[in-house]
Amino acid sequence: MIGHLLRPEIEELIREKNWDVLRETFCDFHPSDIAEIITDVPEADDVALFRILPRERAGEVFSHLPYHHQETLVRSLSNDQMRVLLTEMTPDDQARLLEELPPIVTRRLLETLSPAERKDARELLGYPADTAGRYMTPEYVALKAGMTAREALEYVRTTGRDKETVNVLYVIDANDKLVDDLRLGTLVMADPNAKIADLFDGPLVSLTSSTSLDEVQRTFEKYDRIALPVTDKNGEMLGIITIDDILDVARKEATRDIQMIGGSEALDAPYMEVSFWEMVKKRGGWLSALFLGEMLTATAMGYFNNEIEKATVLAMFMPLIISSGGNSGSQASTLIVRALALSEVKLRDWWRVFGKEVRTSLTLGTWLGLIGFIRIIVWQKIGLFDYGEHYYLIAATVWLSLIGVVGFGSVSGSMLPFILRRLGFDPATSSAPFVATLVDVTGLVIYFSVAMVVLRGTLL
Amino acid sequence: MIGHLLRPEIEELIREKNWDVLRETFCDFHPSDIAEIITDVPEADDVALFRILPRERAGEVFSHLPYHHQETLVRSLSNDQMRVLLTEMTPDDQARLLEELPPIVTRRLLETLSPAERKDARELLGYPADTAGRYMTPEYVALKAGMTAREALEYVRTTGRDKETVNVLYVIDANDKLVDDLRLGTLVMADPNAKIADLFDGPLVSLTSSTSLDEVQRTFEKYDRIALPVTDKNGEMLGIITIDDILDVARKEATRDIQMIGGSEALDAPYMEVSFWEMVKKRGGWLSALFLGEMLTATAMGYFNNEIEKATVLAMFMPLIISSGGNSGSQASTLIVRALALSEVKLRDWWRVFGKEVRTSLTLGTWLGLIGFIRIIVWQKIGLFDYGEHYYLIAATVWLSLIGVVGFGSVSGSMLPFILRRLGFDPATSSAPFVATLVDVTGLVIYFSVAMVVLRGTLL
Repeated sequence: MIGHLLRPEIEELIREKNWDVLRETFCDFHPSDIAEIITDVPEADDVALFRILPRERAGEVFSHLPYHHQETLVRSLSNDQMRVLLTEMTPDDQARLLEELPPIVTRRLLETLSPAERKDARELLGYPADTAGRYMTPEYVALKAGMTAREALEYVRTTGRDKETVNVLYVIDANDKLVDDLRLGTLVMADPNAKIADLFDGPLVSLTSSTSLDEVQRTFEKYDRIALPVTDKNGEMLGIITIDDILDVARKEATRDIQMIGGSEALDAPYMEVSFWEMVKKRGGWLSALFLGEMLTATAMGYFNNEIEKATVLAMFMPLIISSGGNSGSQASTLIVRALALSEVKLRDWWRVFGKEVRTSLTLGTWLGLIGFIRIIVWQKIGLFDYGEHYYLIAATVWLSLIGVVGFGSVSGSMLPFILRRLGFDPATSSAPFVATLVDVTGLVIYFSVAMVVLRGTLL
Repeated sequence: MIGHLLRPEIEELIREKNWDVLRETFCDFHPSDIAEIITDVPEADDVALFRILPRERAGEVFSHLPYHHQETLVRSLSNDQMRVLLTEMTPDDQARLLEELPPIVTRRLLETLSPAERKDARELLGYPADTAGRYMTPEYVALKAGMTAREALEYVRTTGRDKETVNVLYVIDANDKLVDDLRLGTLVMADPNAKIADLFDGPLVSLTSSTSLDEVQRTFEKYDRIALPVTDKNGEMLGIITIDDILDVARKEATRDIQMIGGSEALDAPYMEVSFWEMVKKRGGWLSALFLGEMLTATAMGYFNNEIEKATVLAMFMPLIISSGGNSGSQASTLIVRALALSEVKLRDWWRVFGKEVRTSLTLGTWLGLIGFIRIIVWQKIGLFDYGEHYYLIAATVWLSLIGVVGFGSVSGSMLPFILRRLGFDPATSSAPFVATLVDVTGLVIYFSVAMVVLRGTLL
């Protein structure tokens, strides 16, 4: 907060290259404010600015910089400076940094770590992405069940200083098995002579290293915890996950889902920072695939060329019909994708969803069809357009087609995410545009089939 | 966790109406597990089940129940039982409950609160929705700067027991002004004789009661805190917001945005719990609006009826062209909606986004057009379809139209969220289907205009 107020003064100091005063000023700043300032100054200045940071803050500030900025900095720092930097970062920040930087930079960084530190980072990196293992930090305080509250507090006091969080403490037995977790608050408020084993502040909730990130999020939400312990499958304590990391994860996942629903690959970076070619590649891939699918509409139209020649009036309502199918399909698929992501709906619910969508979509289709029917009749009656003598039949074709198209759109839009999940894909890939494309082709077939039945003997 | 394992046994106990054993069993359960069990049992049993809960757990369990379930329960409990229930809930849970229940139920509930409790709930309710004020709890521990660490710990020990969180403590001066915040861990690890004023664990970050929820989320993410203090505009301490509430909020907001992007009103309830009519209403509103907009395509087509009669081949590529515009528009608008929600892009960036979209979309349009061009030439050459002697001109029409349509789609799709935000609406309302509809109409106009220029003197 203070960063915003003092911004002009700081920029002044940077212009004057008044490093001594700057170094002092920075002492009172939050690392993420300093990171923001570094991000904003011209590139020539940022390395200089970074170097004047007190050693113990540099690591923290570094974790708050955007990745491309971290890369630039790493390239311009000496090995010794990098060593200081990395050792001041928490192991989970280290691991994520090492994973996301280009491989050459990663190797250079790993070389600067001490063997013990390298082991920490590598161990964390050994767990598959999107599992609890990847997000845990081994920096927690472990207590023994036999300690008294006073002893435990004394133990926290002497060993806790560098641990990422001491808000929650973990009770382990002689074999490193996790027995209980205990809030620091409970410990502080307990009778100093009480045994740890007798303190109880709610049942133990724990994760294993292979718990999926989705499940981790739900567990945090369900149990309102600020940190959760992670064990291996034998119940041995490995590390902890803190809620602030999960808040970041939740937001990033929602962003990925939203971008995929919108019909593009996940950008995995802020919009403004994605380069021109990267943007073309990530969006062009999906657009091309959709375009190829959409070309089937031209193929389908080839079969109905005769009908259009005989009754060009049918072409007029084509966009209206197919886009209504696309809209209802996008709507249904989006609702189901999100419901699946939140586990509001499970795979086995597909049949109930199917029934719900059939009822909802037939109602919606009948309603939209009615609007379309009335529109055609009214336009004809007040003379806005002449649909020919069989305008009643055309209006009926539109109505019936809309029921079919909206019904098919909603049902296929809602079932697609289930099918994708069942096949092991991310349901969010069933993006709105994908469903719309699918429904466009079938929409045309439905429309012309209905027309051929209704208009047989009159227009066709 | 334990809840899942014991589920069959518990259901057995419920069937046997063995309340005594059940009451004992529940003591070891997490409130949210009990809530899940209550949600799942037949309705006749849930009130009974709820009544056997130990008094001090009932409030917590109640907070974890879905709203419609809370309502059913409230109607079947006596005034006295409700009083116990409400007083065991934390004030922020109380306030949210009172806000979301039907007014009659709310009034009945408020009557059971003591005047002091009612004041708490009403005060919290006085703040506008979507501001920090609505999510804060007044239950925090305040310290004085002159205390020593030992005195402060002793104070926490004696007053902290019922406070929602003691993980972070707040230092206030004689006028209730917030001076600093202090992690409990820092206090525990400090020299017992050190003065509170001299303990420093990072700069103070605070919110005011009118801070927007968006800003609150960003502040939590930026500063990695587990609780943040809320003050009024004079800096007087009002309450705190805890990160677990913000995790819930972040998830709910993402859900609303996703549902709106998919072209429906936000459901504001799990998919499975939305009744048939509610579903038809929430989805039908948007679908009808889109349908009315889409009817403009029929109007536009009315103007091009002559062209279609002369060259029915043009109708064949209509769906392909307009859906390509719709797809690129949905894509662009979704990316910008999310970037705005995450503040990656600000209102004032609209011009840079405009430039970026123009370049990206012209490239994409040229590429898609090329695919379309080749498709037509190849189909003609290998005899899959006969587009007539002027097939080169038709292919050229498709290519040029795609550049125009994809360009217009992306640019208008990306600008619409800015316009909505500028006018004070939620950018997420510029849903994929909305943009697609907008682009469908203009896409037709672009397509036929290009055709009239390219095909003049030959087909038209």
